[in-house]
Amino acid sequence: MTDQDTRAGTMNGAESLVRTLLASGVDTCFSNPGTSEMHFVAALDHVPGMRSVLALFEGVATGAADGYFRMARKPACTLLHLGPGLANGLANLHNAKKAGSGIVNIVGEHAASHIELDAPLTADIAGIAAPMSHWVHTSESAADVGGDGARAVQAAMTPPGRIATLILPSDTAWNEDGVVAAPVPAPGRAPFDQKAVGKAVAALDGADSLLLLGGAALTEENLQTAGRIAAATGCGLLSEWSNARLERGAGRVFIGKVPYPIDQAVAALEGFRRIVLVGARAPIGFFAYPGKPAVLTRDRAEIIALAGAGDDLTGALDALADGTGARSVAPSGLAAPQDTARPNGAITPETIAAVLARSIPENAIVVDESVTTGRTFLPATAGAAPHSWLNNCGGSIGFGLPVAVGAATACPDRKVLALIGDGSAMYTLQAIWTMAREQQDVTMVIFANRSYAILRGELTNVGVQNPGPRAVDMLSLNRPDLGWIEMARGMGVEGQRVEDAAALEEAILAGLDVDGPYLIEAMM
Amino acid sequence: MTDQDTRAGTMNGAESLVRTLLASGVDTCFSNPGTSEMHFVAALDHVPGMRSVLALFEGVATGAADGYFRMARKPACTLLHLGPGLANGLANLHNAKKAGSGIVNIVGEHAASHIELDAPLTADIAGIAAPMSHWVHTSESAADVGGDGARAVQAAMTPPGRIATLILPSDTAWNEDGVVAAPVPAPGRAPFDQKAVGKAVAALDGADSLLLLGGAALTEENLQTAGRIAAATGCGLLSEWSNARLERGAGRVFIGKVPYPIDQAVAALEGFRRIVLVGARAPIGFFAYPGKPAVLTRDRAEIIALAGAGDDLTGALDALADGTGARSVAPSGLAAPQDTARPNGAITPETIAAVLARSIPENAIVVDESVTTGRTFLPATAGAAPHSWLNNCGGSIGFGLPVAVGAATACPDRKVLALIGDGSAMYTLQAIWTMAREQQDVTMVIFANRSYAILRGELTNVGVQNPGPRAVDMLSLNRPDLGWIEMARGMGVEGQRVEDAAALEEAILAGLDVDGPYLIEAMM
Repeated sequence: MTDQDTRAGTMNGAESLVRTLLASGVDTCFSNPGTSEMHFVAALDHVPGMRSVLALFEGVATGAADGYFRMARKPACTLLHLGPGLANGLANLHNAKKAGSGIVNIVGEHAASHIELDAPLTADIAGIAAPMSHWVHTSESAADVGGDGARAVQAAMTPPGRIATLILPSDTAWNEDGVVAAPVPAPGRAPFDQKAVGKAVAALDGADSLLLLGGAALTEENLQTAGRIAAATGCGLLSEWSNARLERGAGRVFIGKVPYPIDQAVAALEGFRRIVLVGARAPIGFFAYPGKPAVLTRDRAEIIALAGAGDDLTGALDALADGTGARSVAPSGLAAPQDTARPNGAITPETIAAVLARSIPENAIVVDESVTTGRTFLPATAGAAPHSWLNNCGGSIGFGLPVAVGAATACPDRKVLALIGDGSAMYTLQAIWTMAREQQDVTMVIFANRSYAILRGELTNVGVQNPGPRAVDMLSLNRPDLGWIEMARGMGVEGQRVEDAAALEEAILAGLDVDGPYLIEAMM
Repeated sequence: MTDQDTRAGTMNGAESLVRTLLASGVDTCFSNPGTSEMHFVAALDHVPGMRSVLALFEGVATGAADGYFRMARKPACTLLHLGPGLANGLANLHNAKKAGSGIVNIVGEHAASHIELDAPLTADIAGIAAPMSHWVHTSESAADVGGDGARAVQAAMTPPGRIATLILPSDTAWNEDGVVAAPVPAPGRAPFDQKAVGKAVAALDGADSLLLLGGAALTEENLQTAGRIAAATGCGLLSEWSNARLERGAGRVFIGKVPYPIDQAVAALEGFRRIVLVGARAPIGFFAYPGKPAVLTRDRAEIIALAGAGDDLTGALDALADGTGARSVAPSGLAAPQDTARPNGAITPETIAAVLARSIPENAIVVDESVTTGRTFLPATAGAAPHSWLNNCGGSIGFGLPVAVGAATACPDRKVLALIGDGSAMYTLQAIWTMAREQQDVTMVIFANRSYAILRGELTNVGVQNPGPRAVDMLSLNRPDLGWIEMARGMGVEGQRVEDAAALEEAILAGLDVDGPYLIEAMM
């Protein structure tokens, strides 16, 4: 720090917050500010070190913070304007919360004296924040802001990662009593359930036992340990239906997912009588369906919860490895490099999967919001070059493009490949502009099936047979067709529309070759 | 009804809800459904009469319901997918709530048995709804859904209009015990404060007294009465800074607004010692600013609240007219038809205002989210052809395009002219697609100043002098420039970019001439 930085009593609350966040290791801010946040914006000029990324819609900012956490393994902050600005960011906060991502939301609020006047933008910010936040606090004075900020970071860093929302009344931002606070250490990961180890070791024995992993159990190292356990015990290995971040590709241990469709999930789990959970929850259905089960495991399956999402998952897997004598065993399920034939013909889930297997570059980050189109991608790409795979754990669409912004912000040296259904992409397409502004190395593939395809299946699943034209119309994105190339160009990003699998592969390779964002509209 | 319609016990909850809504007069639904709403979607095929309009983002659906209420003077419903779907619609529900618009939100929820499993999309829906709803209820069984729906409509129709949110667990939608409920009458407008009439009549006397109107006091008829009162008493006449719907144009009584900028508002109100409120609230600042007042009226101004937004405003104005002997007086402030000269040169707030004065067609609906650009529009267009003018009362941007969708849905025979700042339009640009799908007669003018211009002023207002480049960068929408013509084309809407005032006028006339949506990007 320079002399100027340490002068007491001459710093406003906003500046004390920026400095505190930096001191606590938060150096990236995804912003959509308004009047009540102007002092924070101004502080960005006084304080070096905070990278600010502008989003043109708050759902982009919160989704980007989610993607950032997954790749940087530390929180970013968002800067949001009052209750409605926070409200616009809630859906992607929901996804982040379900993924175990840590985020510090800074939400401007009217000056305390102004709230009672019920101005147009006045709303119950704490009430809006509560459903999607683990921690909510409103600063009471400029002198408190620094300490509150440090505690917000602490809350966000509590394993596996939490949503912290700090509400900053504008007078606490502009008053000159700011004090920079020292970082408040977050707790480490909690111990796994030591008492369950023996039972878990005994349970993992043969093909009717399953080791089910989630969250931070899906790092490359932890998967290697899991692969050794599978080799030593003959147990099955699966991950949850959706994973915040999965390390995969050639040379890594391949792990399948519990399928999304209920019937397939029940079939996949039917054979397992004993299930050990490490960072995962017991499998349940995404939705309830008339006459179908919600609990997906077989009746009376024994379920042993060894470690939850915030627990010491590496320790839990190491204990299992020790107990099963797996330490010195070579892991099973190691993915071999693949030599997938060049696909031809129409763009289908299968040909896309083949293209991906051939074109995912080493060390890429794949953001997958491909919904129905993508259900076959994982097995087909098991032997692609090593990469990270990010899924939506909260089910609220509009996840992928913002998460790609955040991943690219965290990892500017890695290629990002975003695989997004057209209906999902439309929710938060403003993210494309931020990619252009930041010149992020993101190749987007938009799957233009021109429908909420998942819902066509769901109509049948919930028992609606032969839906009529008015129902089908509510699930169709044609009339008019969406033109993704035109929309992307309007946000400063070039791209191309492709009609067959060979052209898709060429386009993806061209996009990856570009040093900046590129959009491919894949006609299905 | 046909025989088929009255069969007892053979209708699921979703169908009973659609039939109840129709029976209660709600025949329009702005939808973005998901799995949990599939039975409602399916019921659309079985039950004739419900118009469903698909939105590709929930903020479009809720904003459209707001615009619909303002023009139809009755509620539409929205169909939203679980907590995150509702969350995406909250910001425009906030605006609707502040405008006194009635809306019935139907929000799908997991089946009751599924909620405890904490599935990915599970969230506290009632908690998410509460900050932006006057009424929230979760249906407990299929047999209850009809009655709950009727009460939701009653709540939404309670004057001036309220936000009602009905949460519909999917089992209550699919179970077969649905019962169609009879409409539940909403209360009428409450009586105005009879005891305040004498004081209000005495107060309105000369140029230091003000009649301040809001809400339903701004109908053509009520404004005529207000004009008579002004003529009889010499009082001033103003509306709130923003109005849900204002009837104006040649032959109608012109009414100015309390200005948005604090200093101008204080100056405009400085001369008034006595203020009578009819449908309006006492003027306060939009934001608090360091060293500036939040209450905009002069110290010790006498403020007489004769009638609130939900009260009998016509009765209140009639009582004032009787008391001031204004009944037989010709109204003052009648706007004469205008002969505005054709503007030339650059597109500026002043030349745009002149273009509007010349081009607003008779009976048009003007949706105004022009923010900084539009501050001079009202006086300049006082003598344009008669039209309705809709403003954002809640201050959350992303209001205008969705409200235009709703207004066009309610009034298919009227031209809609949407005047939107580029930053605001970007929030909910998905509305353009719905306009194309529904072939709505909306001419959009996007003011491309390529910045959050209002915030540049606000930086100074909150006391930040000479903001540095990093602060200014957070308020700039260039890098890259937004291409509105390209984005609109990608959503099936044609348009043109104009660079000067004469071209703007030609483009607006061309857009109005088109029988469908048209977008004009006005370069500033």
